[in-house]
Amino acid sequence: MPSNTSVRLARRPSGTPVPDDFAITTEAAPEPGPKEFVVKNTMISLDPAMRGWLDDRPSYLPPVGIGEVVRAGAVGEVVASQHRRFPVGSYVSGTFGVQEYALSDGRDVTKIDLAQGTPAMHLGVLGLTGLTAYFGLFDLGKPRAGETVLVSAAAGAVGSIVGQLALLNGCRVVGLAGGPEKCRYLTEELGFHAAIDYKADGMRRAMAEACPDGIDVYFDNVGGTILNTALTMLAMHARIVVCGAVAQYNADAPTPGPSNYLALLVRRATMSGFLVFDYASEYPVARRRLAGWVADGRITAPETIVAGSVSDFLPTFMRLFSGDNLGKLVLDISG
Amino acid sequence: MPSNTSVRLARRPSGTPVPDDFAITTEAAPEPGPKEFVVKNTMISLDPAMRGWLDDRPSYLPPVGIGEVVRAGAVGEVVASQHRRFPVGSYVSGTFGVQEYALSDGRDVTKIDLAQGTPAMHLGVLGLTGLTAYFGLFDLGKPRAGETVLVSAAAGAVGSIVGQLALLNGCRVVGLAGGPEKCRYLTEELGFHAAIDYKADGMRRAMAEACPDGIDVYFDNVGGTILNTALTMLAMHARIVVCGAVAQYNADAPTPGPSNYLALLVRRATMSGFLVFDYASEYPVARRRLAGWVADGRITAPETIVAGSVSDFLPTFMRLFSGDNLGKLVLDISG
Repeated sequence: MPSNTSVRLARRPSGTPVPDDFAITTEAAPEPGPKEFVVKNTMISLDPAMRGWLDDRPSYLPPVGIGEVVRAGAVGEVVASQHRRFPVGSYVSGTFGVQEYALSDGRDVTKIDLAQGTPAMHLGVLGLTGLTAYFGLFDLGKPRAGETVLVSAAAGAVGSIVGQLALLNGCRVVGLAGGPEKCRYLTEELGFHAAIDYKADGMRRAMAEACPDGIDVYFDNVGGTILNTALTMLAMHARIVVCGAVAQYNADAPTPGPSNYLALLVRRATMSGFLVFDYASEYPVARRRLAGWVADGRITAPETIVAGSVSDFLPTFMRLFSGDNLGKLVLDISG
Repeated sequence: MPSNTSVRLARRPSGTPVPDDFAITTEAAPEPGPKEFVVKNTMISLDPAMRGWLDDRPSYLPPVGIGEVVRAGAVGEVVASQHRRFPVGSYVSGTFGVQEYALSDGRDVTKIDLAQGTPAMHLGVLGLTGLTAYFGLFDLGKPRAGETVLVSAAAGAVGSIVGQLALLNGCRVVGLAGGPEKCRYLTEELGFHAAIDYKADGMRRAMAEACPDGIDVYFDNVGGTILNTALTMLAMHARIVVCGAVAQYNADAPTPGPSNYLALLVRRATMSGFLVFDYASEYPVARRRLAGWVADGRITAPETIVAGSVSDFLPTFMRLFSGDNLGKLVLDISG
C-alpha cells in the first residue's frame, strides 16, 4: 500500500510564504469508499490565486484550514475506484491538492482527453488557465477587431493566452512583462504588436507610445501601479477586466487602490471582475475551441514544467512571484 | 443698455477655492449678432462637478481658462434675439455661466416648458441633475425590484432623485447623508428604507445592518472611504455606478483609490462610469417621465434656492462641500 506525501498549511503566511508556514506529512494513501475513487497526481498546477486561499479572509472559496492540504488544481490517473464514471485508468483533472494521492467523489472533476493535449496542457491552455483567459477576455473584455488590448503578466499562464486570443480577434495587442527576454518572447514568438518591460524605466511613456489610440481593453492580472497607469490611458468606453492582482498577493500591508479610478467616469469605462467557475456550463465548448486553435498552431501555450516531488512545492510556487517562469507553471511529480 | 456682471476664474484654485481665485467683472451686456440671442440668467445651477472644471487637467470638458467666466448651467429668459428658434421671451436652459447675461448661438440650449416645472426644477429634477440620476441608475445600475440600492450624498441633488427612482422600481433603498436631520428627511419625507449618517461613528456597522443581503447597486457620488466600505459589502453581480467623488474634489493631494477593488472579482461585480451628455438623444423621453412622476407626487425634488447676485457665487457654491444644502442648490439672481 503506497504512502501519500502531502503539503499542509501549518500556519497562515504573513506576506511572502516561508517554509515554516507548511508541513510535509506522509501517511497511508487513501482507499476509495462507495462512489469514490483515488487519483495519483502527476502534474500540480501552480497559480497566483493559491496564495489568496491561504489567507483567513472571506473570498470566493473558503480559506485553506490550518492542517489541511494546500489547495491546488492537478491532473492524474485514477488508480483505485468504486465510482462508475471514473474507472481505474481514467485521466482526470480537479482540485486534488498538493499531494501524491487524492480521494474524490467526482464532484468538480473533469475527465481529460489526452488526444486534445498533454496533462500539463489540461492544467494550462485547456484547463482553468485557458478558460479564464477565454471567458474573461471574450465575455467581459468584448474586444472588437482593430481595438487595442493591453494585458499585464503577459508572459504568464493566463496573459499569454489572453494576448493570443485577442490577436485571433484582430486586435492590436500590447503585453506587459518583466524583463527583455519575456518581452522579446511576446513579440517574436507570440506575435504581440508590442511588449513593455515593466521593470525598466519609462513604463508610462512606453505604454502611451504602444497604445497611441488609448486602451480599449485592459486585462489586469497584477493590479498596483500598472492598473493605475492604465487607467490614465483608457479609450472611450474602455473595459478593464479584473482577473487578479499578483502585485499585492504577498503584501504585508493593505495595497493602495487605483487612485485614478475616476477615469472610469471621464472615459465612460467599466471595470469588472469575474470568476471562471461561473462559466462551468460553457467549459466544453470553450475547451474544444481552445484545443482546435492549439492543434492549428494558432495558439502557443508556453509552459514551465518543473520535475520534482511535492516537497518542491514552495520554491516552485514562489517562481510565480519572482517572475521566474514563462507561461503555465506546473510541478511534475510523475517521475 | 444693461451691464453684465460676471464671475471669472482669476487663477486655478489649489484645494478649496478662495475668493482670490475669482474676479468679478462688469461690462456692457452682449448684443446678439446674426443667429444669436442673449439670455438674462435668472437661476444658476451649482454642482460639485464645477469644481473639477476649474482644474487644469484633461477631463470630459476643457478646463475653464484663466479670465473666462466660470462655467455653470443656468436658466433664463431670452431678452434679445436674432435667432428664429429662440425668440425674445423664450425660457431656456444651457451652460450660460456665472453671469447675468449670456450670448448664445443656440448650441446645447434647451427651451424649457414652465408648465412642467419651475425654472429651478429645470436645473434640478428636470435638468441635468435629474437626467444624471435617471440614466446612471437605470442604464448602469439596472436595479431590479427587491434589490438593495445604496446611494451616497443621498440628500443631495442627484442622490435624492436616485433614491426615489429606485423606490419607484421596488428596491430597498439606503441613503448615506451627513447629519441626523438629513437622514430623517430621507426616511420620513422621501420614504427611504434606511439612512446612515456618515459623519457619525459606526458607519460601517450601520451600512452592514441596513444592507443585510449586501448591496446590489451602489450609486456613488462621493468616492473615498464610503466607496471603499461599500466594496466590502457587495452582493453577487453588484453594479457600482461612478457618478462623482465629491469627497476629493477639493483635495490638495492625490486621494487614495479604493483599495478593496478586488471585491469586484470576488463578487463578479462591475464598476462603471458615465456622463449624462452621452444620453442627449434620450433626454426628452426621460424628462417627460420625470415630469410625470413629479406631477403625480411620486418624486419630491428637494431644493435649496439662495437669493442673491452673481457675487454670492463662491460662498453659495461652497455649501455643496460643507454639506450645508438639501437637494438641488441654485443661486437665484432674478431679484
